[in-house]
Amino acid sequence: MLVAGVAQRTIRVAHDGVAVEIIDQTRLPFELRIARLASVGEVAEAIVSMRVRGAPLIGVAAAYGVWLALREDASDAALESACGRLLATRPTAVNLAWALAEMRAALAGVAPAQRAARALAKAAALADADVATCRAIGEHGARLIADVAARRGGEPVNLLTHCNAGWLATVDWGTALAPVYVAFARGIPLHIWVSETRPRNQGASLTAWELAQQGVPHTVVADSAAGHLLQRGRVDLVLTGSDRTTATGDVCNKVGTYPKALAARDNGIPFYVALPHSTIDWSLTDGIAQIPIEERSADELRVVAGRAASGERAEVRVLPEASPARNFAFDVTPARLVTGLITERGVCKASAEGLLSLYPERRRVS
Amino acid sequence: MLVAGVAQRTIRVAHDGVAVEIIDQTRLPFELRIARLASVGEVAEAIVSMRVRGAPLIGVAAAYGVWLALREDASDAALESACGRLLATRPTAVNLAWALAEMRAALAGVAPAQRAARALAKAAALADADVATCRAIGEHGARLIADVAARRGGEPVNLLTHCNAGWLATVDWGTALAPVYVAFARGIPLHIWVSETRPRNQGASLTAWELAQQGVPHTVVADSAAGHLLQRGRVDLVLTGSDRTTATGDVCNKVGTYPKALAARDNGIPFYVALPHSTIDWSLTDGIAQIPIEERSADELRVVAGRAASGERAEVRVLPEASPARNFAFDVTPARLVTGLITERGVCKASAEGLLSLYPERRRVS
Repeated sequence: MLVAGVAQRTIRVAHDGVAVEIIDQTRLPFELRIARLASVGEVAEAIVSMRVRGAPLIGVAAAYGVWLALREDASDAALESACGRLLATRPTAVNLAWALAEMRAALAGVAPAQRAARALAKAAALADADVATCRAIGEHGARLIADVAARRGGEPVNLLTHCNAGWLATVDWGTALAPVYVAFARGIPLHIWVSETRPRNQGASLTAWELAQQGVPHTVVADSAAGHLLQRGRVDLVLTGSDRTTATGDVCNKVGTYPKALAARDNGIPFYVALPHSTIDWSLTDGIAQIPIEERSADELRVVAGRAASGERAEVRVLPEASPARNFAFDVTPARLVTGLITERGVCKASAEGLLSLYPERRRVS
Repeated sequence: MLVAGVAQRTIRVAHDGVAVEIIDQTRLPFELRIARLASVGEVAEAIVSMRVRGAPLIGVAAAYGVWLALREDASDAALESACGRLLATRPTAVNLAWALAEMRAALAGVAPAQRAARALAKAAALADADVATCRAIGEHGARLIADVAARRGGEPVNLLTHCNAGWLATVDWGTALAPVYVAFARGIPLHIWVSETRPRNQGASLTAWELAQQGVPHTVVADSAAGHLLQRGRVDLVLTGSDRTTATGDVCNKVGTYPKALAARDNGIPFYVALPHSTIDWSLTDGIAQIPIEERSADELRVVAGRAASGERAEVRVLPEASPARNFAFDVTPARLVTGLITERGVCKASAEGLLSLYPERRRVS
């Protein structure tokens, strides 16, 4: 997608070929800082600190992390250690485990001397595949948006999204925002309600920024305002991403997604979730019981970062010193509240049968 | 309630008897600043800027504003002008209109020379009545909490609240928090989940502060986390205030209340609303269609105020310059989602019949 009019990806191999470069997402929207990650440790730190974030993107970042580890030490032990370290960075998004499994499979039987080159090739292939996958999600989702637009008779289609499931959450295009970008490019009039997404403000700082860069009309609102907008007919379609989706269609995503799904249901507004195949955890059947929910540092609630009047980056404390806080990062939206899932293979019901209709190779003979 | 161990009210007549003093709520939690309001214009400004806020408290503040206006000019025209000016400060809470109607009624037929004294007496009476009303809400609500505690077998009762409906929103005691304070004083083990309440952070900056001052165990969470907490059985009871409640039990309150009510309903958790009689708008029967929803400046979303590392008050900008924002301040929770209303007269169903059972004098012969 565009940054100041120039097409970019969120992650790439550096020109010198010995590191990766990422957009440091903790500096947006006020500074476009490219960070260089030259070791598996730096990749792991970037994932933990959310300088790279978004389920699909952290999968690809971890794949590059394996490459960087093998550049230093191509032994079996080093591979094991790197995968363990990367897997431990964040618990909820299954893309991390998926990408590491892809890397292990690609490296199986490869002699140590060839491993780094093979890892780089595989990581690059995963990055390219993510772009193609997201682009396909965009095509399928854009048809849904076009259907709504046809009923709106020229009035802009109002979409509501949560957190950032745009190109910054992937290598390019995004998941929930890919349909927006495809539809927008085709001239469908659109307006996106962007929920701020406390405590890290990824809606306000990332989604708003990337929509502004592409020229897509949008408005930021407080997370709590989504119910009001849905109740007042100001939203035609809710579209979010996912960090892990069960084989039965339960959707784990940024905390606050579940209340939005409830409000959509209460007002008869469709609620769709866009996700690549790498976000589906085929081993799970009950999202509430089985998906680990990351709890992050309460400092993310205590301290708000932004731009001071001087133009400098600054932080302010917003909680009383004496008050404890907890920071649950995800919630689970049960499949019953999800109108449909949009994947690179098409749109399906949020159910085991729905997912198997798109991924018949996952059907087990019982 | 206590501030650093000393009992205080949120509003009082200054020692010199020619102004009122308020706790400037825009400076909490980091600074307890008492602001002096010496004219109706200063009272109106304090309400608009939310230096005083909370439906019951702005009603009482407006009453004192009428007194200050009449001290300067006791004419009919001055009274009209003051009431018009105060009524226009904020549109949603009906307590403002209610308090001004009470003042007009008290001043009807009073000669100009006696008006200021009469207005002061009436404003003070409204303040005292608010304290008694909130205390009674506390008694009725504490019985509900005691019932839950009895089922919890000694484990703390987990309540979830939104925004600030504590003593800072009233003259003393609060609405939603009055039952908490009464139950806590009786030794019932409690823990309060406090939702941050963007964009002005009244949960994080006001509710957390006042709970800490009284020693009530609490934890601040992002607004979006309420659904997750309710889904995981971490909440036994949801308790909020109201800015306007229709004669049919629809509840207008701080934006974000409606999604919490949906999540409570989806998980079978009781959702109660505590309110004084002055918050009931007997003229309305459809909250969604009839209650005006205040839209405040988007700067409240754009800029976050807090304490810098230096200890000074500071502000940071959090939204990209290019991104529009909108700031809807309230939403409406339909009566069907409300388990019950707690008023100074007891607990009733959120329905016309429920409210009339507590306020039979409002029953009209048709």
